[in-house]
Amino acid sequence: MTSTERWFPGHLREVSREDCLALLGSKVVGRVAFCDDDGPTVLPVNYVVHDDTVLFRTGPAATIGRYLGGLAAFEVDDPDDYTESGWSVLVRGHVEPVEPEDLPADPDARPAPWPEGVRSLYLRIVPREITGRRVFPA
Amino acid sequence: MTSTERWFPGHLREVSREDCLALLGSKVVGRVAFCDDDGPTVLPVNYVVHDDTVLFRTGPAATIGRYLGGLAAFEVDDPDDYTESGWSVLVRGHVEPVEPEDLPADPDARPAPWPEGVRSLYLRIVPREITGRRVFPA
Repeated sequence: MTSTERWFPGHLREVSREDCLALLGSKVVGRVAFCDDDGPTVLPVNYVVHDDTVLFRTGPAATIGRYLGGLAAFEVDDPDDYTESGWSVLVRGHVEPVEPEDLPADPDARPAPWPEGVRSLYLRIVPREITGRRVFPA
Repeated sequence: MTSTERWFPGHLREVSREDCLALLGSKVVGRVAFCDDDGPTVLPVNYVVHDDTVLFRTGPAATIGRYLGGLAAFEVDDPDDYTESGWSVLVRGHVEPVEPEDLPADPDARPAPWPEGVRSLYLRIVPREITGRRVFPA
């Protein structure tokens, strides 16, 4: 938040794109939303921000692999139940596969899924729009 | 989790429907996913579980109000960055408005949005499917 922004307790404030990108980079788990034949679905993933896209991994048999090129969204948030405040960032765009040469050169900079299992398919959400909201303690 | 379930470190486990409902009831913030004209979008909301539906409030001018009856999803999760473990529950179904007589009789049992502002529209996600996954510490 820039110092020129005003806010009011309990009010929602829009978050600037710059701050959205910083908040996106502060988390390791987010949620990919996409539509399959049964409508919208949401998938928690481990991710990194790379080249202004949201990079994550999945298995070659994962459902989302059948919807490449399709519209998708990605959400991260940080609610605080005690103060009843927090922020959320929403990325809207499309999902596409990532070629190996477009991955971060440093393997440690690539997304590291918590669950075991083969997740050899690298995907990314390419943003068309990045927005965020923050609600301050009442 | 029932005591008869086996699990392996770092592995994903399906969560039973009964446990999904218990986990759903343990949180106060979740994420509604639905599709508007620009594709999937995700909206964090304060919610309660009522009559086996996910009940939340929004403003009369909110985008989701134009997609009533449409397919929707609802997700809650609880990742632990330190142990790299956690759970998530996904509800898939449709979103519909709630008549006043179908709300919890006790006002304190109704969803209480953190942000200020008029949120006079009560909506609910009616589940078609409830699934959950848990990843255990590696």
